[in-house]
Amino acid sequence: SVPPGVLPLCYRPLTWGRAARQPPGLPLAPCRAFSNNKIMVELDESSGVATMKFKSPPVNSLSLDFLTEFCISLEKLENNRACRGVIITSAVPKIFSSGLDITEMCGKSTEHYAEFWRAVQEMWLQLYGSNMVTVAAVNGSSPAGGCLIALSCDYRIMVENPKFSIGLNEAQLGIVAPFWFKDTFVNVVGHRVAERSLQLGSLHPAPEALKFGLVDELVPEEKVQEKTGAVMAQWLALPDHARQLTKSMMRKAVLDRLVAHREEDIQNFISFISKESIQKSLRMYMEMLKKKKG
Amino acid sequence: SVPPGVLPLCYRPLTWGRAARQPPGLPLAPCRAFSNNKIMVELDESSGVATMKFKSPPVNSLSLDFLTEFCISLEKLENNRACRGVIITSAVPKIFSSGLDITEMCGKSTEHYAEFWRAVQEMWLQLYGSNMVTVAAVNGSSPAGGCLIALSCDYRIMVENPKFSIGLNEAQLGIVAPFWFKDTFVNVVGHRVAERSLQLGSLHPAPEALKFGLVDELVPEEKVQEKTGAVMAQWLALPDHARQLTKSMMRKAVLDRLVAHREEDIQNFISFISKESIQKSLRMYMEMLKKKKG
Amino acid sequence: SVPPGVLPLCYRPLTWGRAARQPPGLPLAPCRAFSNNKIMVELDESSGVATMKFKSPPVNSLSLDFLTEFCISLEKLENNRACRGVIITSAVPKIFSSGLDITEMCGKSTEHYAEFWRAVQEMWLQLYGSNMVTVAAVNGSSPAGGCLIALSCDYRIMVENPKFSIGLNEAQLGIVAPFWFKDTFVNVVGHRVAERSLQLGSLHPAPEALKFGLVDELVPEEKVQEKTGAVMAQWLALPDHARQLTKSMMRKAVLDRLVAHREEDIQNFISFISKESIQKSLRMYMEMLKKKKG
Repeated sequence: SVPPGVLPLCYRPLTWGRAARQPPGLPLAPCRAFSNNKIMVELDESSGVATMKFKSPPVNSLSLDFLTEFCISLEKLENNRACRGVIITSAVPKIFSSGLDITEMCGKSTEHYAEFWRAVQEMWLQLYGSNMVTVAAVNGSSPAGGCLIALSCDYRIMVENPKFSIGLNEAQLGIVAPFWFKDTFVNVVGHRVAERSLQLGSLHPAPEALKFGLVDELVPEEKVQEKTGAVMAQWLALPDHARQLTKSMMRKAVLDRLVAHREEDIQNFISFISKESIQKSLRMYMEMLKKKKG
Repeated sequence: SVPPGVLPLCYRPLTWGRAARQPPGLPLAPCRAFSNNKIMVELDESSGVATMKFKSPPVNSLSLDFLTEFCISLEKLENNRACRGVIITSAVPKIFSSGLDITEMCGKSTEHYAEFWRAVQEMWLQLYGSNMVTVAAVNGSSPAGGCLIALSCDYRIMVENPKFSIGLNEAQLGIVAPFWFKDTFVNVVGHRVAERSLQLGSLHPAPEALKFGLVDELVPEEKVQEKTGAVMAQWLALPDHARQLTKSMMRKAVLDRLVAHREEDIQNFISFISKESIQKSLRMYMEMLKKKKG
Repeated sequence: SVPPGVLPLCYRPLTWGRAARQPPGLPLAPCRAFSNNKIMVELDESSGVATMKFKSPPVNSLSLDFLTEFCISLEKLENNRACRGVIITSAVPKIFSSGLDITEMCGKSTEHYAEFWRAVQEMWLQLYGSNMVTVAAVNGSSPAGGCLIALSCDYRIMVENPKFSIGLNEAQLGIVAPFWFKDTFVNVVGHRVAERSLQLGSLHPAPEALKFGLVDELVPEEKVQEKTGAVMAQWLALPDHARQLTKSMMRKAVLDRLVAHREEDIQNFISFISKESIQKSLRMYMEMLKKKKG
């Protein structure tokens, strides 16, 4: 039975002007591979599995451009009948994604902050609410927003390398993870682990991430692709409709919470990020990063 | 202290016309054992422990008749002052219960679907909200509705046999576990394990069920009765009143949610199950089962 | 970003007439150490870490006087700019705290019950909602209210001695843990462990407490101080503001629930504790304790 209040489809954001899903009888769109600037997308039509590969060196940071491309790519796949699952991974060695691009949050206008934050929300709403099977192949470090992307998938495979770490480390930077980052995190690791990890801004090395349930399994780097394919096949063996309804039932409360507070959340972000103390923290952090590189 | 909003008694469904609990001074009802068609009930008055043994071969499926008998039996025990705890187990080898009887959901009238679903709800409301200590001795496989019965007890002992499995595998059949199955599951195993297991429609072999917390312990088949008795004695050592209030405090939110949406849930079930695509899935599944047997 | 509905400061109870936090420019209050009757408080201004040591033999029970002193001490530290973290521990061998003082709940007036219960609530609201880093060094047994104090801290270190146990064992005494004890417990160990432990009124020996996540780590008695200091230093390495906002985000829902139902909760406590059956249970329990001593 469909539980009360669970929609027959997952949450579908309206902002990006989604086209209607292709009706069954039509020929499939000739959508084999489309490469853009920052994300490479490949669709294997025989299996119905797409791969989104982040290729925005040096660290796949989530700039406004990156987020926009991510949302457009994901939506194309969502609307493509030939696509039932998406693997999200990185083409940049040692890094999955470094999270939100700090340059978008530093010394910009209020309008820019609003646009940027709306894109961050949109990315999460689309990914966490996707009807497709989503598997993260975390083949590098994945702090903050990078971790959020992994947490929003249905399954997380991480490379068995203790040098790679993952976590919502916002507190280390003097900022606070938004409530919907927190809700997503709690849904994965439970309240206690989330409370401790968020307060400490912990970045968990891969073995610890496995122990805390932050990722589902670790595999050697050379086995990631094989393993990811096998997991995807297991999930795709289920009938789509029942699986989608079940996913929606599990995630709807948390998705609805952001939808209900979206503008408020943008205003909160703007007023927080505009504080001189926060701007100063971020500038110091960026300088530290530059020194590290140099 | 009694927390606000926690009733002094557990939830007690009104549908089945429960008689008032016997006042303390009266002699105990001469209720030693009553056997029916599908469930054998025995009460040991010296210990205050009843056993409900499913004996509806081949697979103890939850038909309307079975559910009605279950509710009447459980209510009799609930109202019997001599009974403080119930052990639920199976008299059929290798199977605890196969879950909801698919023949009740296939090719029947709307009225029948409504009556059947109300009985499923009633079974859960009575069992999950029972004032008695409830222990499941899972001595065989326990998919779907069978798993729900186990999850609704206070404690789960499973036979240490990897051939026996347990889980809410509805998604495998192309259907969706109702929200209150999901709520009960999340209360036992947490959000992440529930999300993955429900989406995949997983049936967990006994050792995996233990690992995920789906059952509390595994014992060899020949020790089940002894162990169940010992666990029951441990729980009955507590003063009834405090234990009942505590149980109610833990379970009330989830019980109330179904009570508040009961008719809506029935309508959802009817409209879902009446779909031709769902009927087709169920017919195919039944034919597959027949072939397996033949 | 600050999530909607998350205050810029943690919950701050108004009841005790809190003074405004000292503005940055002023000299620090000469608050090095203040000893009272039941709790010894020491502040190390160089590290910003205070220690609250319970010294109310024989068992550090939470009498009205103890609770009042606890709240006044904690509030002084909360308002002292030099103090960023508090370690809570015991100066009485083998016992952290035995929990609520039963003599305060037995044979007293309604007014007394109300005053006592308000003080219990206040203690929890201040501690669970504290802006400071709070670490419990559980160096002895910690039943009921003693366990609540530990659960309300940010981190729990327990002495590695299986003779020391911890748990919300109210049900053993025929009483029921209040809903906010339960909420705090669920936030630490999850729903399933809490349900079972509360219904059985379990006191978990240290190794089991670790297994269930009731405490974060065990250390030999002689290492407790060193380890507690190291953990505190780790938590204090984070910027206060971000850590405080994060803590508030995690705990606000549960704190708000008591604030919204505070008077109702007091009335419930009074009517429950005033029952002759409960009074009788408590008298029997006290006599049992006396015999044990004698």
